[in-house]
Amino acid sequence: MVSPGSNGPASSAPFRPVRYELLTLGDELLLGLTANGHLTFIGAQLGRRGVMLQRNVTITDETDVIVRQFRESWAVADVVITTGGLGPTCDDRTREAIAEVLGQKLVFDPAIERAISERFAKHGRKMTENNLKQAQVFERGEVLPNAHGTAPGLWVEQDGKVLCMLPGPPNELQPMFLEQVLPRLAARKLLLDREAYVQIRTAGVGESMLETKLQPIFDLAGSALSVAFCAHQGQVDCRVSSPTGELSTARLEEIASACAALLGEDFLCYGHDSMAKVCADLLRSQEKTLAVAETATGGLLAHAFTDICGAAKFFAGGVVCCCNDAKMQLLDVPECLLLQHGAVSAENAVALATGAAETLGADYALAITGFSGPTAGPGGNDVGTIYLALFSPSGVWSKKLSYPGPRGTVKQRAVNAALDWLRRELVRARAGQTAPARDAGVMQ
Amino acid sequence: MVSPGSNGPASSAPFRPVRYELLTLGDELLLGLTANGHLTFIGAQLGRRGVMLQRNVTITDETDVIVRQFRESWAVADVVITTGGLGPTCDDRTREAIAEVLGQKLVFDPAIERAISERFAKHGRKMTENNLKQAQVFERGEVLPNAHGTAPGLWVEQDGKVLCMLPGPPNELQPMFLEQVLPRLAARKLLLDREAYVQIRTAGVGESMLETKLQPIFDLAGSALSVAFCAHQGQVDCRVSSPTGELSTARLEEIASACAALLGEDFLCYGHDSMAKVCADLLRSQEKTLAVAETATGGLLAHAFTDICGAAKFFAGGVVCCCNDAKMQLLDVPECLLLQHGAVSAENAVALATGAAETLGADYALAITGFSGPTAGPGGNDVGTIYLALFSPSGVWSKKLSYPGPRGTVKQRAVNAALDWLRRELVRARAGQTAPARDAGVMQ
Repeated sequence: MVSPGSNGPASSAPFRPVRYELLTLGDELLLGLTANGHLTFIGAQLGRRGVMLQRNVTITDETDVIVRQFRESWAVADVVITTGGLGPTCDDRTREAIAEVLGQKLVFDPAIERAISERFAKHGRKMTENNLKQAQVFERGEVLPNAHGTAPGLWVEQDGKVLCMLPGPPNELQPMFLEQVLPRLAARKLLLDREAYVQIRTAGVGESMLETKLQPIFDLAGSALSVAFCAHQGQVDCRVSSPTGELSTARLEEIASACAALLGEDFLCYGHDSMAKVCADLLRSQEKTLAVAETATGGLLAHAFTDICGAAKFFAGGVVCCCNDAKMQLLDVPECLLLQHGAVSAENAVALATGAAETLGADYALAITGFSGPTAGPGGNDVGTIYLALFSPSGVWSKKLSYPGPRGTVKQRAVNAALDWLRRELVRARAGQTAPARDAGVMQ
Repeated sequence: MVSPGSNGPASSAPFRPVRYELLTLGDELLLGLTANGHLTFIGAQLGRRGVMLQRNVTITDETDVIVRQFRESWAVADVVITTGGLGPTCDDRTREAIAEVLGQKLVFDPAIERAISERFAKHGRKMTENNLKQAQVFERGEVLPNAHGTAPGLWVEQDGKVLCMLPGPPNELQPMFLEQVLPRLAARKLLLDREAYVQIRTAGVGESMLETKLQPIFDLAGSALSVAFCAHQGQVDCRVSSPTGELSTARLEEIASACAALLGEDFLCYGHDSMAKVCADLLRSQEKTLAVAETATGGLLAHAFTDICGAAKFFAGGVVCCCNDAKMQLLDVPECLLLQHGAVSAENAVALATGAAETLGADYALAITGFSGPTAGPGGNDVGTIYLALFSPSGVWSKKLSYPGPRGTVKQRAVNAALDWLRRELVRARAGQTAPARDAGVMQ
């Protein structure tokens, strides 16, 4: 982890670790009605800029609870970020509670009132009186305009610390954080003004094996290099950084590039792209299209691609078929094949992929069939037995996998394995290799 | 919220609110690499048993940080639940840190060692030495066996408080919490031994309108009744309870039943079932099948159904088509119709639903087409413009909707609106009404 303030050889600032705390407010989080996506988003954004969030506290939205927790966090942290409780209703009490601790008055800001009433007018709605509460701001503080909602964010510098209060809805919070909060924090040297590390994403190789493979490159770079590994969902990310600033970004990129070259097909991408995004980019650059057919993963594979902007350019379509009739009707899978080999078989997977490619006129096709549980399939197939098939311009192959674990995990792993197989095939096609990636490692 | 200890007229226990805190441990949570699903799961489970989690604190897995936070939480809470940090590796330090605060020794439990080595043998793997760390338990405490992994949970009663330490993987934590932790907490009267409220799920009616509609029923029940509303994802849940225990569960169920009768089609279900589950049950009980066709929601509608166990019984299949070729190929949508009316049109939605029902031989079909953003569609259609179509034994209709908001929200709302439309049609079919639910309210 890079320590802000110690960044770059030219920096004369003494090392001082900056303590960040995140307060997420709302009964709906504590009652499990809404997932705490603010922690995931803000934690990841800070991590990229060299800061590790030190604590996240989720509390109810009662005034005395907010006062007590904020007082404690404000005493120990350098930067406190709060989310939620800035809205117009009676349970939005964060502003008042925190003003009390800071010893500040709330004052009325007519510019905010104008912005709110213009917003209501634009949407043809009438502004109710309680919305004016959102125009209350700290007497010594700044306003972070909200382009996507009524409640602006608030920014206070006091006691040598920073307080940043953000609205609860993710579609309001996220652009405000990226466009307004990150640049302000960077300008005050409370985090880096660029990503703190160069990240190499890999697939198909475990954490310890990856470390062993890359160690010779790291040894050459010397002790100024810091390396961190992070495994998630069957992938491993490797982050190289230079905490003392001795190695320039260009040098870090050189090192990452050497790692990528050494890893070959196991190298996924630099940065943070998803496996589906990497596949999409490969398909687009080669002007190829993809179709998918799913049984066990029931739409999850199609969803991975259609979540990408402009999917219609490369995604020919997908078919979700749970019963044999659908396979026969939509994808021309022969009935005799289903009867002889069963729905969960290598033969059926190949027929599904071929049917999807041919029916939808796609260059590539992926098929996933299997038992995702929780009950076992017929014919001695265990829960977690999955057959993949890949149709490509150079042929069609199948692969049998077995994943223990709950239904959701099996589905996600099967999708990841299918995406990784396609990715390897596309990488080989780009390199002009026609041999199929049939023996490539599949993530376990 | 019902206060445990004050439950039931026969209870002589004095009222004492029980304070629950949840400590979630792990750098991966603070770095945003993993969502904090433990808060969502445990918060919801406690809520159902009449307890509102008072605080969730997420911290790094350094020993001194754990010691400091646990000391503070142990001082103020009656029940502390921890998750994570019980595994075999060097960053699993929770056990040691907490033993220090409790002033307890860790002792070696040979029964746990046996269970771990048997687990390894069963999976044909060799047990490494560091796994033995998981056999260290508190000298004064109990062990919660882990049927799904190596690290057992730990249970301590000390200082008039309860500490419950759970392993981090959700597929280990969740069954342990439901099967072992909830019954233990209920036996000690720290939460209720049944659900604290009767919940009525509704759709298509806003929170304030719902309250107005149901108020006469609540007025009849008198002041012993407590009512709470909770809006999420376009639905509103209404929970009726009796904090003093004056009203029996049977009486609460009577009240809920009166609400359901008054709400008619706007009543979704009792309890916690999803809208897709309600549709699935209606389809199964009427022995009907469903097919879906999606463009804008790209697999999300199919995914909602295939997540339900035994989906093959009622779900004939789904088609995800982003381009016109797929619509023509898979679902026989006429090219002239696409050219004349455009892909995002009422006419195309109807053709998609009809094509899906006929191709897949289903009784019902849903189609969703539209622009989910972020870029606007051609022909003056705004981002967030969605057309739904419903094919049923009594005919086929379309409906235009408009959802502002980011892509993910538009997709989820469109799926919910489609599910609600189907649900209303199935409810009418069950009642023997043949008139289509074409004018039914659709959730905004």
